[in-house]
Amino acid sequence: MASPAPKGERQLVRRLGGLCPGTPELPFGDDLAALAGDLLWSCDMLMDGVDFDSRSHPWRLIGRKAMAVNLSDCAAMGARPAGALCAVALADALSAEAAYELMAGVAECGAEFGCPLRGGDTNSWPQPTVISVTIAAHAGPGLLRRDQARPGDTVWLSGPVGGSLLGRHLTFSPRVDLGLRIAAELPAGAAIDVSDGLAIDLARVCEASGVGASIDAVALEPLIHPDAHIRSRTTGRTPREHALGDGEDFELLVTLRPNAPTERCEALGLRCIGRITADRELRLVEADGASHPLPILGWEHFR
Amino acid sequence: MASPAPKGERQLVRRLGGLCPGTPELPFGDDLAALAGDLLWSCDMLMDGVDFDSRSHPWRLIGRKAMAVNLSDCAAMGARPAGALCAVALADALSAEAAYELMAGVAECGAEFGCPLRGGDTNSWPQPTVISVTIAAHAGPGLLRRDQARPGDTVWLSGPVGGSLLGRHLTFSPRVDLGLRIAAELPAGAAIDVSDGLAIDLARVCEASGVGASIDAVALEPLIHPDAHIRSRTTGRTPREHALGDGEDFELLVTLRPNAPTERCEALGLRCIGRITADRELRLVEADGASHPLPILGWEHFR
Repeated sequence: MASPAPKGERQLVRRLGGLCPGTPELPFGDDLAALAGDLLWSCDMLMDGVDFDSRSHPWRLIGRKAMAVNLSDCAAMGARPAGALCAVALADALSAEAAYELMAGVAECGAEFGCPLRGGDTNSWPQPTVISVTIAAHAGPGLLRRDQARPGDTVWLSGPVGGSLLGRHLTFSPRVDLGLRIAAELPAGAAIDVSDGLAIDLARVCEASGVGASIDAVALEPLIHPDAHIRSRTTGRTPREHALGDGEDFELLVTLRPNAPTERCEALGLRCIGRITADRELRLVEADGASHPLPILGWEHFR
Repeated sequence: MASPAPKGERQLVRRLGGLCPGTPELPFGDDLAALAGDLLWSCDMLMDGVDFDSRSHPWRLIGRKAMAVNLSDCAAMGARPAGALCAVALADALSAEAAYELMAGVAECGAEFGCPLRGGDTNSWPQPTVISVTIAAHAGPGLLRRDQARPGDTVWLSGPVGGSLLGRHLTFSPRVDLGLRIAAELPAGAAIDVSDGLAIDLARVCEASGVGASIDAVALEPLIHPDAHIRSRTTGRTPREHALGDGEDFELLVTLRPNAPTERCEALGLRCIGRITADRELRLVEADGASHPLPILGWEHFR
């Protein structure tokens, strides 16, 4: 497969994998890592000016997002959230009230999904605010992994994507219940949450699984979010490019075995957008049958 | 007890306690929080320019410190480290090699203490580097807490303190094995690691336990680290003030029941520096018997 984004982060993360002994149950590099017994865990760090903008976003929503992105990692693995910790480096200028709002947003979002905030670490410094949430979750028997896609699987998306920058990146609802149901009720292959972009996250599934994928442009069309169309008016990019390339939609991208019951999948809100192939290529197939390489527009943190 | 440091962080942390449901086994606010089963967890965030200085400190040592401060939290509770996660916001200017050095320092220090690095989150941004390590640990039957000091307990310190800024804050050895042995072998009361300063961390134990303490200046004298004397030459503060007020020594401060076997305690490296009192005052008793309030010089993050 053509390297989807041969930049610094992928290389660094691959090197870091050598520092992190995986476990027999779960190799390094999935949405959650093995902890002990049936527990998995993960952490996500959000930085002011990168993942949120404290000049325009309310602190409670910022806190909510910091928890929700972690809950989305649980969703992607079909794991049940157990609890969370939150460490913050608060900008010196931040008021105690704003700091409390931030933490209340974290705690409330966790409580909503059965994931109590258990503690953390509070610091301040003369730089923009940084928030790091760690989450632990119980693995169910049907744990979803990103390396389990197989040729012949169908590819499904849990909702429309693109243009989340218009606001949904702060208010999205992590698909925790859906992830649990997919793991328990459907013949699932691989799963991931769309955090960096549909195309790049699909590429991650394919790379981890040693497969390729073919996305059906006609099936994708109704899953292009209205916000992608709105963004398109000012960015010079097509709505489809936004749907494929924008990050932070936090919908689930799942592959299902060929025997998956279509009606049941659709009743859960899943929509089929393509299939997994053996040839390790990522392709977009147009209505007329013409196919071309899937554009990988996802954002990478570390260049 | 007189409030030891009536600044913003204490008030904020107290308010945050309302957002964090403690568990019957372990109230909010100790070095580690309850996770599930016998597992505890905690996180600590380190910021460039505050907790380390990337202009003068090697990245591998910085990474080591980020892991070691978390291991010290395990030591303070007599818990056995199980694994760790590390999230970073790397300064844009940082090379991939420096980023790898940092993570290698984290991983190597964890491996040294039986605490494998399991994963994390890698980001970059145009601000100074931030590192957040989360650790999980197994509680033993003799879990050490900070709220279990009782009048009549003696107060012990695991090593000399003061002046860690001269370098030991990067190279200290977390007292993981000692914490496990204290929990298993001694009639322990409360414990904490000296992270923010001997006086303020003792105050935390006393506040959590609803007691006071009397520190013996003569017994403290040999526990004033040589670095405290060196620092004293340039700071205008006495070596004793450095020993009481400097943070980041990461020695254990433990209270033991009156029946603790002195020789055994000393063989483990513990030294008695005072006793717990019922009156909720913190006092320093001089050689001539005169006593005065213990100066609380510990540093607080959030003002």
